[in-house]
Amino acid sequence: MAEKYIYDFEEGKADMKFILGGKGANLAEMTNMGVPVPPGFIVSIKACNKFYEDGKKISEEIIKEYTQHLEALEKKMGKKLGDNDDPLLISVRSGAAVSMPGMMDTVLNLGLTDKSVLGLANKTGNERFAWDAYRRFMQMFGNVIMEIKGHEFEKILEGVKKAKGVELDTELDAADLKNVVQKYEAMVKEKSGKEFPQDPREQLRMGIEAVFRSWGNPRADLYRKLNNIPKEINGTAVNCQVMVFGNKGETSGTGVCFSRDPSTGENVFYGEYLMNAQGEDVVAGVRTPQKIATLEEQNKEAYDQLVKIKDDLEKHYTDMQDMEFTIEEGKLYILQTRNGKRTAHAAVRIAVEMVSEGLIDEKKAVLRVDPASLDQLLHKQLDPKAKKTANVLTKGLPASPGAAVGKVCFDAQEAHELNEKGEKVVLTRVETSPEDLIGMNAAQGILTSRGGMTSHAAVVARGMGKCCVAGCHDAIIDEEAKTLTISGKTFKEGDFITLDGSSGEVMEGALATVDPELSGNFGTLMEWADKYKKLQVKTNADTPHDAEVAVKFGAEGIGLCRTEHMFFEESRIKAVREMIVAKELDGRKKALDKLEPFQQEDFEGLFKVLDGKPVIIRLLDPPLHEFLPKEEEDIKNVAKEVGVTVEALKETIASLHEFNPMLGFRGCRLGVKYPEITEMQARAIFKAAKNVSNAEPWIEVPLAGNVKEFKMIKDIILKVAKELGAEGKVNYKIGSMIEVPRAALTADEFAPECDFFSFGTNDLTQMTCGFSRDDAGSFLGKYVDSEIYDRDPFQAIDQTGVGKLMEHAIKLGRSVKPELHIGICGEHGGEPSSVEFCHKIGLNEVSCSPFRVPIARLAAAHAALKQK
Amino acid sequence: MAEKYIYDFEEGKADMKFILGGKGANLAEMTNMGVPVPPGFIVSIKACNKFYEDGKKISEEIIKEYTQHLEALEKKMGKKLGDNDDPLLISVRSGAAVSMPGMMDTVLNLGLTDKSVLGLANKTGNERFAWDAYRRFMQMFGNVIMEIKGHEFEKILEGVKKAKGVELDTELDAADLKNVVQKYEAMVKEKSGKEFPQDPREQLRMGIEAVFRSWGNPRADLYRKLNNIPKEINGTAVNCQVMVFGNKGETSGTGVCFSRDPSTGENVFYGEYLMNAQGEDVVAGVRTPQKIATLEEQNKEAYDQLVKIKDDLEKHYTDMQDMEFTIEEGKLYILQTRNGKRTAHAAVRIAVEMVSEGLIDEKKAVLRVDPASLDQLLHKQLDPKAKKTANVLTKGLPASPGAAVGKVCFDAQEAHELNEKGEKVVLTRVETSPEDLIGMNAAQGILTSRGGMTSHAAVVARGMGKCCVAGCHDAIIDEEAKTLTISGKTFKEGDFITLDGSSGEVMEGALATVDPELSGNFGTLMEWADKYKKLQVKTNADTPHDAEVAVKFGAEGIGLCRTEHMFFEESRIKAVREMIVAKELDGRKKALDKLEPFQQEDFEGLFKVLDGKPVIIRLLDPPLHEFLPKEEEDIKNVAKEVGVTVEALKETIASLHEFNPMLGFRGCRLGVKYPEITEMQARAIFKAAKNVSNAEPWIEVPLAGNVKEFKMIKDIILKVAKELGAEGKVNYKIGSMIEVPRAALTADEFAPECDFFSFGTNDLTQMTCGFSRDDAGSFLGKYVDSEIYDRDPFQAIDQTGVGKLMEHAIKLGRSVKPELHIGICGEHGGEPSSVEFCHKIGLNEVSCSPFRVPIARLAAAHAALKQK
Repeated sequence: MAEKYIYDFEEGKADMKFILGGKGANLAEMTNMGVPVPPGFIVSIKACNKFYEDGKKISEEIIKEYTQHLEALEKKMGKKLGDNDDPLLISVRSGAAVSMPGMMDTVLNLGLTDKSVLGLANKTGNERFAWDAYRRFMQMFGNVIMEIKGHEFEKILEGVKKAKGVELDTELDAADLKNVVQKYEAMVKEKSGKEFPQDPREQLRMGIEAVFRSWGNPRADLYRKLNNIPKEINGTAVNCQVMVFGNKGETSGTGVCFSRDPSTGENVFYGEYLMNAQGEDVVAGVRTPQKIATLEEQNKEAYDQLVKIKDDLEKHYTDMQDMEFTIEEGKLYILQTRNGKRTAHAAVRIAVEMVSEGLIDEKKAVLRVDPASLDQLLHKQLDPKAKKTANVLTKGLPASPGAAVGKVCFDAQEAHELNEKGEKVVLTRVETSPEDLIGMNAAQGILTSRGGMTSHAAVVARGMGKCCVAGCHDAIIDEEAKTLTISGKTFKEGDFITLDGSSGEVMEGALATVDPELSGNFGTLMEWADKYKKLQVKTNADTPHDAEVAVKFGAEGIGLCRTEHMFFEESRIKAVREMIVAKELDGRKKALDKLEPFQQEDFEGLFKVLDGKPVIIRLLDPPLHEFLPKEEEDIKNVAKEVGVTVEALKETIASLHEFNPMLGFRGCRLGVKYPEITEMQARAIFKAAKNVSNAEPWIEVPLAGNVKEFKMIKDIILKVAKELGAEGKVNYKIGSMIEVPRAALTADEFAPECDFFSFGTNDLTQMTCGFSRDDAGSFLGKYVDSEIYDRDPFQAIDQTGVGKLMEHAIKLGRSVKPELHIGICGEHGGEPSSVEFCHKIGLNEVSCSPFRVPIARLAAAHAALKQK
Repeated sequence: MAEKYIYDFEEGKADMKFILGGKGANLAEMTNMGVPVPPGFIVSIKACNKFYEDGKKISEEIIKEYTQHLEALEKKMGKKLGDNDDPLLISVRSGAAVSMPGMMDTVLNLGLTDKSVLGLANKTGNERFAWDAYRRFMQMFGNVIMEIKGHEFEKILEGVKKAKGVELDTELDAADLKNVVQKYEAMVKEKSGKEFPQDPREQLRMGIEAVFRSWGNPRADLYRKLNNIPKEINGTAVNCQVMVFGNKGETSGTGVCFSRDPSTGENVFYGEYLMNAQGEDVVAGVRTPQKIATLEEQNKEAYDQLVKIKDDLEKHYTDMQDMEFTIEEGKLYILQTRNGKRTAHAAVRIAVEMVSEGLIDEKKAVLRVDPASLDQLLHKQLDPKAKKTANVLTKGLPASPGAAVGKVCFDAQEAHELNEKGEKVVLTRVETSPEDLIGMNAAQGILTSRGGMTSHAAVVARGMGKCCVAGCHDAIIDEEAKTLTISGKTFKEGDFITLDGSSGEVMEGALATVDPELSGNFGTLMEWADKYKKLQVKTNADTPHDAEVAVKFGAEGIGLCRTEHMFFEESRIKAVREMIVAKELDGRKKALDKLEPFQQEDFEGLFKVLDGKPVIIRLLDPPLHEFLPKEEEDIKNVAKEVGVTVEALKETIASLHEFNPMLGFRGCRLGVKYPEITEMQARAIFKAAKNVSNAEPWIEVPLAGNVKEFKMIKDIILKVAKELGAEGKVNYKIGSMIEVPRAALTADEFAPECDFFSFGTNDLTQMTCGFSRDDAGSFLGKYVDSEIYDRDPFQAIDQTGVGKLMEHAIKLGRSVKPELHIGICGEHGGEPSSVEFCHKIGLNEVSCSPFRVPIARLAAAHAALKQK
């Protein structure tokens, strides 16, 4: 049997959207429900694919098939396409399997010609309407299909209006519009070298082809990329539908409505419309549309019918509907329905309320909310009522979501001090380093002029759930002079700015913000998510405060505590430096003895907050040079502080210099060479655990690539445990990060020695893909643009590369220890597609920054529900 | 049946060396051949393993078993161990499955006591001999088994000699020696708190235990590590053998002999002996041993018998034998035979001559020569007759083998100029950089004070086949003052020094050297190797000169031509820099146009030398900053040269700065961002290939981690090929380096697009193991010492980690393209164990530096022959 390419509306249904496109499938569904839909047929996505296969040509076979459907439609309507006396007019609209609003082409009023326009005028008794329809058709067709620039048409229209001395289109009469049409025809011929087509069937063929072609236009390509639309969604359908007109006078009109409020989610009928208008007029904004409720006064029958239809459709689709309607001379038609887009806030409310209304069940409700959208709910946001546009100075990278309002401050220490005094500040730095932590912590938000989405500022800010705009190249920051200059405007210390970390915008002055709300519907939804998810969701947290936030967000433990962050605090850094400059074991031990009580205190704090939940503590990881000063002045001060000569300190710094520090002397290599560091950390952990009755430390070894390295560190830990009598008293585990490819490749050697694995996907991505997170900026953008990587592999797990290695490691590890507990603690642990991947490959847990915990919980639930 | 632990010599044979140890197995073999071997039995390696299993205790079961064998031996000899009238004396010697000369313990004359010494004196009628034997036994037993320091015994012996006013041991008479024994007994009691054991069976048990223990002593451990003795060789046997004495007067003697000359390989009887001496006297060197030929005059019968035995043994073992013999009162005994150690030169000669003598076949001959040892043959060597010891100043790392004699020179340019004038120089630098290439090329050898085995100097020197001593910390090099100071001695420019790159020694003055010889036996052996090897052996070469050397060494093509090395030459570097500083495409293209003819010329040169053999050309690989100057002064000069301001150049340098350049903007990333670079290189390759009729370029894309990157570069190359009409005319291929783990993990995606793969195991090791070659120095030594890695993974492929990834990639790649050609071009390609691994995993080729080509050929043959 030959392939079927064309479907009448009566032949389709909602679940055929991969053949009919979303719009077409819904038109078909509504038709079959008895909703008043103007009749028509759909040139399917299969036809689009064939069009591309055939070298962007529509085959005779398909033309023949749609012609049959057209003729059937003509028969049904008792009119012929472009008939000179009573022309059938149709609309030709795109419709892919996923909505891509405005991205592809549409032609309305198709079928009008120099002759049929007269028939239309005659038949409707409305000459102006007919010429206006023809004028609009020529404009759309000429622009979309004949590729003549829109402004060529505008110029003519404006010329005619000017000549007549009027301002509005509506002030032109039939003769004027006829004049416009004639001028259009002449211009089209001049610009394209072709006559405006007068054969309606030729118009139709060209229209269908144009829609197909528009699938591949750069704008649509970009939209798909930005919205992560998978490659499997390929091609658009074309909906050919009998035209109805909202611009046939005051009993006609057109509008858009939602079955619930898409911004709040409230269950009220919501929408707007214009009488005597076509859809484009509603969008154009020249006339202010009316609220939907007022339609009741103007046409009660149509209004009641519309209300019933929206109720029916919402029940039918069990989701909030976004509908387009037209009233032609008093009669209501529905032109489109689809599940409505909504804010995160509305999504949560609608999902939860629909469950209590019995429309959907909990599982569906959970799946209704996009995990990534929760980001909007978890941070302080700019008040939507605040007019931010006027204040926007420039845009940087949206490095960490939320809003921040505060005084510009250029120094971390000062930021800290101002915060202590109750001032709100925005820390403004060229870039940040670990020494700025104190100020980042104190600030409302962070602005940097250098660095990318994974720069220190960005990563740390996301970890803190703090707003950050990074890599804002237009911001000229002079840390010495303490000035911030953006497009000529200079801000001094104390001047207010506002950041929007979700958009990257930097604004002048202090704008109003609104706080997040985590209880109510949100809480209910998250409870449901937890019911269905399989993955444990833990958090990356280094301080009791972060841990507290995360637990509030539902973290089931700490999946990564980076002990080195504790080393940077003012009270500790001196001892850390003493340790580093010590030439002998003795000196190192002395310095470590000073650190130990601090570490113990840190761990006790965490154990108390976690109250029995496991805490994965990673042993010291970064290269030692990160703890040493870089600037001449700082070197002098530090040398004095730790009691060595400037020369000696410089020598130490030089000896720690590395060409590729990422691949250098760090991670467990520190403990292999200086076991006393590991000993100190183990002692602090066990002593703390003995002081907090239900502590459950999981000690984690970073950067092991060879099981023998792991074993050496493990033996040190076990020795300390024995010495401190922790054995049998403290409920502890010892596991390995899997972040060096070699560890993944030899996971079957690691597994017997490990209580757990945790994938460090940041480093694993760096080493597997061979690019450094800090340096990839110079080419990674180009790479994502060129689609070498679909998405930045530091944001979403590179499933076909790094992901394969993870799967391999899991298989190897579980082949020798089937019950092995495996997690992930890279930045990916809070990114929905990555969380879903983690579920699929059988991980036990993900860990992410506190503010991403709810996202991960919801994503984990999605993964589990989708798998079923 | 109970395990058998003890074997009489009659019960064993040569192929039982994993049970009996090498020495024991050969003693057994000789016994059964009828060679006059003093009888005895072997406590097997199984017993040693049991000793360790039992917590370093010898079990009753084993004592019982060897006692039975002892009693049988006593019966056979008609004497009892330690009998007071006619004592049986035995030697107790270690003997593992592989020879570990001098590493483990030995006790001779066991069975002597205060009483039996009198019996021995009486029976032999030689009182002095008896007391001397007892004295020697006490000294050995006391030292080895009772752990009393050797010098305690020496002190007593010296004291007695001094008291008597004599100098030599031989000047002591029986009474003196008795006196010595009494003093020994007193000292032993004082030092150990125990009497010297007077029960001969107790002596035997202690002796056996001591030998077992000595297997695990640190010296033996270190030896096994240094000699890469595998863990499977575990434990030593103990040979208990009836003593025969070479010191029973002038009709007795002892010696060592070889069936051929072990240093030249000449087929002559070679050896030396001493009359009236025990083995230790030959070694001690107090008396000068006699040449073996003179034995014929002293004892023709014994000599003839010895010659016949050495002939028999060589025929029997079909290899050159190293034998120990003793003549006791005119009667010849053979105490040991084994395959003799030999120089590389001798190994080749013996192997080849044995084939012509019909003793062995070609395959055996090939397997007889250790591939790694060929290094000795391929480079200029110090004349073995030159007395280097006296001149040795210090020792650095043996970074590249061979010898170099020349005048100290501290500057690359000067080295070049001196060389042009015919002077021989040794380039002496703190460390080298690509800018020193011209001087390295001109020098006889290179000495650096900084950097490891994989430093720039080391890698480049090995590539050039040039002697290099690197990381010589004792050498204080002042490049400004032009002085080299070693242990207080200062050398100025023009002073001669000599380097031994095989040992790392640095010597004063100009020592004599000898040239390598590559024809003759060496050539014959290499022909045989080629006959049996399966792997193709290609070379890493960037210049026609290197390529010529490599072809002479048997390279079957170029496996890696690093095009960037061509960029550093004086005539090109300016254009390279112009390209880098150009802000616009236009400027880059102009600079590239200047480079193109140079590259074309380079490639033509290579194609001509290779004469139809394939040339793998890797596209530009290093980060661009490597081509820019670093020092202030150089920056000024270069800025002027390329016509930009110093600030602009500094800005470019800063913009190219990377935190981890290894993982940065390099490899194919350059071509993805700047396609014009790839275009230029492709043009140069195709134009050159069109000018050389039989050129076969294989173009190789570096650092691809994602097949789409590869595809982008490939498309550029194909476009250029089409433009130049190379299609169908030039026999070219396009392939990918596999050096990023992600490429290996997705090899099934790469394979369909690639004509060949080449593993870049240097980078693959860096990324898979997660350590940078440049930085690993700070911990990798510790890692190899701690046995985390058995060998430096940059020297020998880490088979259990990186190797697994390679196997995985091969499997994936060949799963979609079974005929895929796969090679390796890292430094590992010339390392024997790695070559063997490459053969095993099914590679088609290895590539290595020219001077390693013969090593790789021989190693490849070994691999193929061993597999059969």
